[in-house]
Amino acid sequence: MDMELDSAEAAETNISSAPVDLRRVGAHPDHWYPVAWSHEVKKGQVVASSFAGEPIAIVRPQQGDVYALEDRCAHRQVPLSKGSVKDCRVHCCYHGWSYDASGKCDVPYIGKGKQPNGVRVYPSAECDGIIFIWPGSLPAAPPPASLGAAGDKAYKTRSFGRIVNCHYTFMHENLMDMNHQFLHIRTTGKVTPRYLGRRAGEGWMELDYTFARPDSKQPLGESLITGGFRSDASKPRDLMTIRTEYPHQTLRFFAGGGDVPALYVWLGYTPVDVEQRKNRSFIHLSVRRPKIPGVLDLAWPVLTWFTNRVFEEDRIIVELEQAAYDAQGADWNQEVFPPIRELRDLLSRNGRVMAARQA
Amino acid sequence: MDMELDSAEAAETNISSAPVDLRRVGAHPDHWYPVAWSHEVKKGQVVASSFAGEPIAIVRPQQGDVYALEDRCAHRQVPLSKGSVKDCRVHCCYHGWSYDASGKCDVPYIGKGKQPNGVRVYPSAECDGIIFIWPGSLPAAPPPASLGAAGDKAYKTRSFGRIVNCHYTFMHENLMDMNHQFLHIRTTGKVTPRYLGRRAGEGWMELDYTFARPDSKQPLGESLITGGFRSDASKPRDLMTIRTEYPHQTLRFFAGGGDVPALYVWLGYTPVDVEQRKNRSFIHLSVRRPKIPGVLDLAWPVLTWFTNRVFEEDRIIVELEQAAYDAQGADWNQEVFPPIRELRDLLSRNGRVMAARQA
Amino acid sequence: MDMELDSAEAAETNISSAPVDLRRVGAHPDHWYPVAWSHEVKKGQVVASSFAGEPIAIVRPQQGDVYALEDRCAHRQVPLSKGSVKDCRVHCCYHGWSYDASGKCDVPYIGKGKQPNGVRVYPSAECDGIIFIWPGSLPAAPPPASLGAAGDKAYKTRSFGRIVNCHYTFMHENLMDMNHQFLHIRTTGKVTPRYLGRRAGEGWMELDYTFARPDSKQPLGESLITGGFRSDASKPRDLMTIRTEYPHQTLRFFAGGGDVPALYVWLGYTPVDVEQRKNRSFIHLSVRRPKIPGVLDLAWPVLTWFTNRVFEEDRIIVELEQAAYDAQGADWNQEVFPPIRELRDLLSRNGRVMAARQA
Repeated sequence: MDMELDSAEAAETNISSAPVDLRRVGAHPDHWYPVAWSHEVKKGQVVASSFAGEPIAIVRPQQGDVYALEDRCAHRQVPLSKGSVKDCRVHCCYHGWSYDASGKCDVPYIGKGKQPNGVRVYPSAECDGIIFIWPGSLPAAPPPASLGAAGDKAYKTRSFGRIVNCHYTFMHENLMDMNHQFLHIRTTGKVTPRYLGRRAGEGWMELDYTFARPDSKQPLGESLITGGFRSDASKPRDLMTIRTEYPHQTLRFFAGGGDVPALYVWLGYTPVDVEQRKNRSFIHLSVRRPKIPGVLDLAWPVLTWFTNRVFEEDRIIVELEQAAYDAQGADWNQEVFPPIRELRDLLSRNGRVMAARQA
Repeated sequence: MDMELDSAEAAETNISSAPVDLRRVGAHPDHWYPVAWSHEVKKGQVVASSFAGEPIAIVRPQQGDVYALEDRCAHRQVPLSKGSVKDCRVHCCYHGWSYDASGKCDVPYIGKGKQPNGVRVYPSAECDGIIFIWPGSLPAAPPPASLGAAGDKAYKTRSFGRIVNCHYTFMHENLMDMNHQFLHIRTTGKVTPRYLGRRAGEGWMELDYTFARPDSKQPLGESLITGGFRSDASKPRDLMTIRTEYPHQTLRFFAGGGDVPALYVWLGYTPVDVEQRKNRSFIHLSVRRPKIPGVLDLAWPVLTWFTNRVFEEDRIIVELEQAAYDAQGADWNQEVFPPIRELRDLLSRNGRVMAARQA
Repeated sequence: MDMELDSAEAAETNISSAPVDLRRVGAHPDHWYPVAWSHEVKKGQVVASSFAGEPIAIVRPQQGDVYALEDRCAHRQVPLSKGSVKDCRVHCCYHGWSYDASGKCDVPYIGKGKQPNGVRVYPSAECDGIIFIWPGSLPAAPPPASLGAAGDKAYKTRSFGRIVNCHYTFMHENLMDMNHQFLHIRTTGKVTPRYLGRRAGEGWMELDYTFARPDSKQPLGESLITGGFRSDASKPRDLMTIRTEYPHQTLRFFAGGGDVPALYVWLGYTPVDVEQRKNRSFIHLSVRRPKIPGVLDLAWPVLTWFTNRVFEEDRIIVELEQAAYDAQGADWNQEVFPPIRELRDLLSRNGRVMAARQA
């Protein structure tokens, strides 16, 4: 199952041709980014989030839509997210300055004509249980209309994620390079990925894989996800398509030649800090409901354990990659798999180089 | 109760007129600063303290006055405060070099004619249960003779304080801007401050406030501090005077037109680290004893709880201010209340701009 | 017992004559350094270590000698020490790239002709229970043949050590300046060292001391180490020789005029981090077995407690020295004891000045 690279391929994606350090390329702000799960921001509450070091206060008034402000009071800079929501306004906890959804402020102890400037507003939207903001300076594009199959009742969706201490690009590379199945060997057993091909366009690319199990054993958690037990798992017959559609990713798994995904995963990675060495991952993992009702619900605890464990293995390794990058002070990666070189180019072209590192 | 600012006032205290970053102004060393409570340094002990990153060893010999030395052995630089006190000398714990109150050192294993230079001595003094040092280079002024009403037997005094992770100037601004009563609403109930006026001179300024309680309710802790229950708290009739007398502060509360303070608070803030992003606060809170003996002692636990809680709310908010300053890398404050702008000028004029930030 | 320095001595070792900052002198890499205890790396295991910030993977295959590689996968830079050992190769845990003792790598999913460069190999050796590497660029010298008396059956050896948060030079100075007995006064009782003289050569020096006990009391732990109880410990009669043979140290104790050491200590200090502000100490403490069998084994727990406590007192003080150096940003030491000035010169001459400090 060696993957032969022809020399044209190797030449077109020469490592040293990229003068840019990918881990210093910021997530481009002119996109929609997830900043909170909908259930985290209850009515009458304000919650702290961030995008690449910009603190963001997410406010859900008692009535009406969520809105997002710069998370600082214009007065003494303390977080508005420490304040309280009354009617449609968020009140700073210190001297009681208050703000509405337009960011305009009202100081209770000075005259109407002397009100100072307020704070920045971020366009915001909700989709399939996630609150998104648009941190860029261009006018906001239409917000996402759906996230994988999370809104489709034919699927049962598990939503999870956490802060991962690495640059978002490590997440993209991790998912797209299925040769990393070696990492999950203790969880999934031995799986041999076979790369089938790729497609690409403006701001996106996708890869197809199939898998073989040399030892014909499949763990329970995996069978539950991918659609039932198989009598002979040694013959490759399934298709996995992994797609980066900047800045998000999806993974679709089609069992045995079908054209409806048995598994549909949507993944979003929001940089947390200025240096973008941390990201918050938001994942919707949607499994198509089998014909027999209740089976999937019964299997859910096993599936949860299995996906948590795989995600945790991935988290540990990408954090080790970031630690190595930080220690080495530069990107020493020797990428030999051409699709990953292309992914790196895509991420590099679509992102925005960060300012010089802060002390 | 809006506070109208006339335009002359607004003009004279224009925000952008101050080119100096107040949080980079160090506490001026040519003043007396508290470095320890007297009870912390027992006879025959040496204790570590600091002023703005300068380590200071405070020594109380078995006999005689406290003295303060640079907290490092001249030999291998380890803290003298790790050593031991014998007679009037402090002995370094490592090779046994010893120092007297003049900072002169004695090395036990070399000849008298070859003794090396010793360490710096800081002028020191004790007043009302606090040990002060004079960290400056000018000759020391006479030390403080009293701290508020802490030495007056007509008052009962609670002494408290702690390390607060912020620049000392946030402490001054916090206390002086009573519009921050909004912060304490859950502890004190709703209190509406009314600013009455200010006085200022060389190195000091003071503000007068009175308070109204729109809902006529007063918490028990507050009544205990300010002199008994009142039948109608809705009419303003009390006076609070807050004073910065560089580098310390006081707060006096005069109940119902009296001219003897019912409450007298003295506050000192000593920068701890080189960057002065931390201060150690020393507070004497003195309450005038009521005519009926024992009432105040009975009430003391409630009063302690109440003042601890108010101080803790203040600590959290000033630390958030420091965190915002550190994240923003500059002072973005938009101060709209003229007395606070004057206070900032006073602190700026009387302090000393710090060297460029260390890495 | 003052130690008189004649002026010629004082002149020849003038403090200000040394322009180099000793704490910025790195341990010279062209020597053998301990990186692990042999028992830490079991057959079929790989373990992480480091030398001055260079991560090192130590591999012990099922068969054959230990080997040491740069601890990073050539692919995505994650530590090889997180991987697994199979036959004679270590496999990276991420995509399964594998390496042999020559550092050559094998990528399972690409063709033979396209294999990328591997990783650096460090010469390695084992001696008396310690794994050594040669981190330098010169050809490796013959590895150590013995470490003090650790391989001698006439001795019983206790092997211990830990990470100490200081530059390795503080360790050398600590051991060699026996005037620091003052530090151990609570553990050892009062001991007065008497310096007898020194010898030196290329890359080494050694000092002789004897000791007096003004109060004639000797702690149990000490008698066990140094060869039995003495009826009159007040007369100096024993000899201690401390030697720095770059980059390691030994301490030998000869009781009552004997020429076979009753105690033989070998000490190695390996810098851990790039800045060399931490070292890992490896200590073999070998005590000559007395004529009566079993006595030493019986006494071992007391001896262990005693040596642990002395080492812990030393650790605390050298870490305080490092902390002082870090706070002061330079070496302010005023060394008055000529042999220690010579030791500093020796360490300075034999080390290698580090690059400018990293941010």
